[in-house]
Amino acid sequence: MSKSSCLQRTETALAAISAAGDEGARIFTRVYSAAALAAAQAADARAAQGIRLGPLDGRLVSIKDLFDVAGDTTTAGSAVLRDAPPAAADAAIVQNLRAAGAVIIGKTNMTEFAFSGIGINPHYGTPGNACDITRIPGGSSSGAGVSVARGLVDIAIGSDTGGSIRIPAALNGVTGFKPTQARVSRSGAYPLSFSLDTVGPLARSVLDCAQADAVLSGTAWQALPTRSVAGLRIGVPRGLLFSQCEDEVLAAFEATLSALSAAGASVHDLALDEWLGAPFRLQEQGTLVAAEAAHIHAAVLASKPEALDALVLGRIRRGEKITAAHYVGVQQARTALQSALDAQLADFDVLLLPTVPFVAPHIAALQDEAAFTQANLLVLRNPSVFNFYDLPALSLPIRRETGAMPVGLMVVGQRNSDRSLLAIGAALQGMPGLR
Amino acid sequence: MSKSSCLQRTETALAAISAAGDEGARIFTRVYSAAALAAAQAADARAAQGIRLGPLDGRLVSIKDLFDVAGDTTTAGSAVLRDAPPAAADAAIVQNLRAAGAVIIGKTNMTEFAFSGIGINPHYGTPGNACDITRIPGGSSSGAGVSVARGLVDIAIGSDTGGSIRIPAALNGVTGFKPTQARVSRSGAYPLSFSLDTVGPLARSVLDCAQADAVLSGTAWQALPTRSVAGLRIGVPRGLLFSQCEDEVLAAFEATLSALSAAGASVHDLALDEWLGAPFRLQEQGTLVAAEAAHIHAAVLASKPEALDALVLGRIRRGEKITAAHYVGVQQARTALQSALDAQLADFDVLLLPTVPFVAPHIAALQDEAAFTQANLLVLRNPSVFNFYDLPALSLPIRRETGAMPVGLMVVGQRNSDRSLLAIGAALQGMPGLR
Repeated sequence: MSKSSCLQRTETALAAISAAGDEGARIFTRVYSAAALAAAQAADARAAQGIRLGPLDGRLVSIKDLFDVAGDTTTAGSAVLRDAPPAAADAAIVQNLRAAGAVIIGKTNMTEFAFSGIGINPHYGTPGNACDITRIPGGSSSGAGVSVARGLVDIAIGSDTGGSIRIPAALNGVTGFKPTQARVSRSGAYPLSFSLDTVGPLARSVLDCAQADAVLSGTAWQALPTRSVAGLRIGVPRGLLFSQCEDEVLAAFEATLSALSAAGASVHDLALDEWLGAPFRLQEQGTLVAAEAAHIHAAVLASKPEALDALVLGRIRRGEKITAAHYVGVQQARTALQSALDAQLADFDVLLLPTVPFVAPHIAALQDEAAFTQANLLVLRNPSVFNFYDLPALSLPIRRETGAMPVGLMVVGQRNSDRSLLAIGAALQGMPGLR
Repeated sequence: MSKSSCLQRTETALAAISAAGDEGARIFTRVYSAAALAAAQAADARAAQGIRLGPLDGRLVSIKDLFDVAGDTTTAGSAVLRDAPPAAADAAIVQNLRAAGAVIIGKTNMTEFAFSGIGINPHYGTPGNACDITRIPGGSSSGAGVSVARGLVDIAIGSDTGGSIRIPAALNGVTGFKPTQARVSRSGAYPLSFSLDTVGPLARSVLDCAQADAVLSGTAWQALPTRSVAGLRIGVPRGLLFSQCEDEVLAAFEATLSALSAAGASVHDLALDEWLGAPFRLQEQGTLVAAEAAHIHAAVLASKPEALDALVLGRIRRGEKITAAHYVGVQQARTALQSALDAQLADFDVLLLPTVPFVAPHIAALQDEAAFTQANLLVLRNPSVFNFYDLPALSLPIRRETGAMPVGLMVVGQRNSDRSLLAIGAALQGMPGLR
């Protein structure tokens, strides 16, 4: 924690957002200045009395614009919802954050309905990447990643259906954590996919993510157990998810792997394409996300489809053609595959792979629909596999040279081992090259 | 328990099945004579040593022909599966029954793929109703109901997706229990609907059902708590589910209700059609069962649909046209409706209504497709509502005059209150008119 008061830090953050002008408004679709200042004063008053509500007391937090805040319209990045009635109550995680003493600075921008991994939004603008404003922020939690990477908040709360936390974390050089789905309540969060949506934090360290996770999941905070890199059993799933990777991404990944080996980790190449490729083969004729989106947005599709981003509309429209029999078949196969992959991973603490195969491309290069679609499929490819398998996963920044675009390391844990994964992630982040 | 030895009872049952000739073969699609005799001898040997494995030790049990028995083909009532490879392992509930010392007499006949409530099967024959062999047995657990009602076994294990335990229980004059879905494992049971399938017993008393439920659910047997009819808060959902009821069914129901009032129960008419009608309104464009069946039977539909009962084929074919968006919408609405109905039922111990609106019709009267379809929709109507809401439910026989066709009373409990429902059912069954 900073030595300066929470109120000073809050004022500084609000001033920085305001000073960023239009770009600030592309990062934050809404700023809660008065409420944030009041929460900050309350945190300072508690601190003066030696009272602490937990690890997030007085921390600055942003929330993605798909979480309900009582009295506010939840836009979920869509123009269609601009005039929707205000939410009646705070989302479950917003209640948790307030009860934990967090200072909610504002709501962050996102891809429309969270329906792409790129982060471009034609309705509310596209926040630029924190490292190079001409490049994409990654999505769908675009403003979340940028708000943390630019130091405007300590922690951003995002959602991740196919990579929407890990992608902006990777592309902006921060840490992102996608938990097991059941760990964090989705009540009051605008849905993209009932089967795959998860809620988690982006922050500047695994420790911050772990503390945010405790608050989001409503569990008492306990220090992470200390894990050692020496002896860590690491699996590297060479194959499909390593294809089409940029050289600089692979170079950063391999350098990290070498450092881990040198520190005594036991690294094994694994041939897991049978399982890691299954989500794509199974869903070739239609994805769970598209099918569920077709239901969620049925009213909009019927009444004013022209109000949607054409790229988002195209993806949802494909969902309308999916049969229930296909959908049920994917769900059944998914259940069986989850057990099968669990068995393959039993001997390993974590899987390591690149979060995203490329560094953030320029926004201008993705205006063309074909280029956008190709980049979107590729950016979602690696992360989405672990939504399908519902395994917890981190993205850690692994390239810290000044001026270089960030690269993310995806660290995938075992089923329901969220805390164990966070402890391992903290150990990895404690290494010199990863700090 | 009978005073005669388990071996004697087993021999008597096997002889009776054999003596029934073709009708015996229409009730039991398979008889495990040697294994049953061995199990009976083991039970007697344990009893002689004062050892008892639990409440089902030495009881005679039948299992519906959709539960896997290692080394045996599971036909699920279909000609398509007649030459399917044998099951590799016992279904979970078969393992539980064997471990509990039950004597498994054989496998009972059923509607093809459990896909109707009538019980007619063109491939393996239709067992006649235990009270009048020219009438339908009810389904889909047709042989299960008849095997108990004719005294060939103590307990029959069936499955219930839209009434398949409660309907044959009602039409043959025995007790049937459909538990909450998650209570009993469906591992090794041929599926009809992943969302709605349940596994439970039919027997000659609630107590027998409760003891079987303990074994099926893998919980230690404890005597049911004693509940009093006096003070019982009973809701009667007058309206939709009381329409099209035969006079003799209504008369038996009202007589029971009067007896319960006289015994001090507190009976309230409820207007619940908003919730009880919702499953039908929601699924007008396609049911969960049909959608899931279209997936389960996709290979057969593609390769040899002509091998299916035309009536079953027609119902599955309708599932092929259902969209994933519709299916997802029904599932989401279902979750919300479950909470809403729970709230409506909070002040009541049980709901009471007729299980089936008619007494068993003659088999000959349902050869016509239109008549069959109409009767099938009506026989499934009341029970299926409580699969949709996943509430535990009993069917108790309430008409005991000699020569009269049986009538079933459906007793619906609160969510996850299976044991409480069984205790109330036992109290109801302890009343003079219901014994």
